[in-house]
Amino acid sequence: MAEEVKLIGMWGSPFSRRVEIALKLKGVQYEYIDVDLTNKSPLLLKSNPVHKKVPVLLHNGKPIAESLVILEYIDETWKANPILPQHPYDRAMARFWAKYIDEKCLPALWNACWCEKKDREKAVEEANVGLETLENELKDKKFFGGESIGFVDIAANFIGFWVGVLEEVVGVELLTIDKFPILCKWRDEYVGCSGIKENLPSKEKLGAYFRTRVESASQSE
Amino acid sequence: MAEEVKLIGMWGSPFSRRVEIALKLKGVQYEYIDVDLTNKSPLLLKSNPVHKKVPVLLHNGKPIAESLVILEYIDETWKANPILPQHPYDRAMARFWAKYIDEKCLPALWNACWCEKKDREKAVEEANVGLETLENELKDKKFFGGESIGFVDIAANFIGFWVGVLEEVVGVELLTIDKFPILCKWRDEYVGCSGIKENLPSKEKLGAYFRTRVESASQSE
Repeated sequence: MAEEVKLIGMWGSPFSRRVEIALKLKGVQYEYIDVDLTNKSPLLLKSNPVHKKVPVLLHNGKPIAESLVILEYIDETWKANPILPQHPYDRAMARFWAKYIDEKCLPALWNACWCEKKDREKAVEEANVGLETLENELKDKKFFGGESIGFVDIAANFIGFWVGVLEEVVGVELLTIDKFPILCKWRDEYVGCSGIKENLPSKEKLGAYFRTRVESASQSE
Repeated sequence: MAEEVKLIGMWGSPFSRRVEIALKLKGVQYEYIDVDLTNKSPLLLKSNPVHKKVPVLLHNGKPIAESLVILEYIDETWKANPILPQHPYDRAMARFWAKYIDEKCLPALWNACWCEKKDREKAVEEANVGLETLENELKDKKFFGGESIGFVDIAANFIGFWVGVLEEVVGVELLTIDKFPILCKWRDEYVGCSGIKENLPSKEKLGAYFRTRVESASQSE
């Protein structure tokens, strides 16, 4: 029986895109099913009844949710082009930083973009703490994964691409070259990198999507 | 050179105890260093500069933080008595549930114990959602790991032991047999299980520790 791989995702979600990047890096063929998050499909609700969120990977009908969990599954299932390093200590460091990105950096960056204007200065300061920590971690490496894209780089796709789009739409400065020269260099390498650039949403489409959100927020204030 | 394993922990922390349980299950000899979290030691601050939290595992001087990351490291480094299952899908499920426990169940349970009295009913309802989800997941299994203790059981140690102590101290009902008969059966098996029971704090000491906290909270209200 041929292997069946399906991904339930949402085109503008950095979490869905993590999984797409990983599948493409591995050369795994898959069917992509885009869902409307304002009207969740029965397939999504059945496949991820706990969180009801994208992404969900369906491998021969068996569902796996949570993007970082899916990345580990992909790396263990299809061995070509490893995403995680080989040595247990390096693997632990990769897991540590991906967790840090999800639990500290992303919520702080998101809040800095979407909080009320009066709270913005403090929110940007908090986001800067996370970015500075990543700047120090990256130091003289090309990618978090070393010479090539790895687990942490994939987890950091929001910082590599989404943040720039949001900065323009919302009118906030976050990842600036004077404050974070190393991360900015990483971002440029990252979004230009084969395997990443083809798997990011259109900047215009994503910008328009967020712009609608800004407008509806300003109308409800 | 002999292997050097040290654990920086805090006796009453369920996260530190996860690591102790895993090391004991694996039969790894280690030196335990208890820290006072109100006066953090230079060793802790140097070993986990990002979060400044316990537990930190030091393996031949190299630090690893975040309890679930440490559990994976231990499982990859010392192969005896696996903590995670073998098959990638089962491994993904274990990671999914451990993440669910950390991100949904523990914050909700903690909040149900420590919120203001006026907010308690709602907080208990929210905690019940997490417990019900785990009850459904456990179903007819003895442990989350099947016939023996695994990754999710270790991650759930707060539910197996700490919740009971907190219920008594705070005077709140959470893990009751009428609502969660399966989880209660699991809890009884779990805390009585060799490898777990020797690695839990003293009920009296933990109760006294939390009681001091309740008293200081009531004085500040």
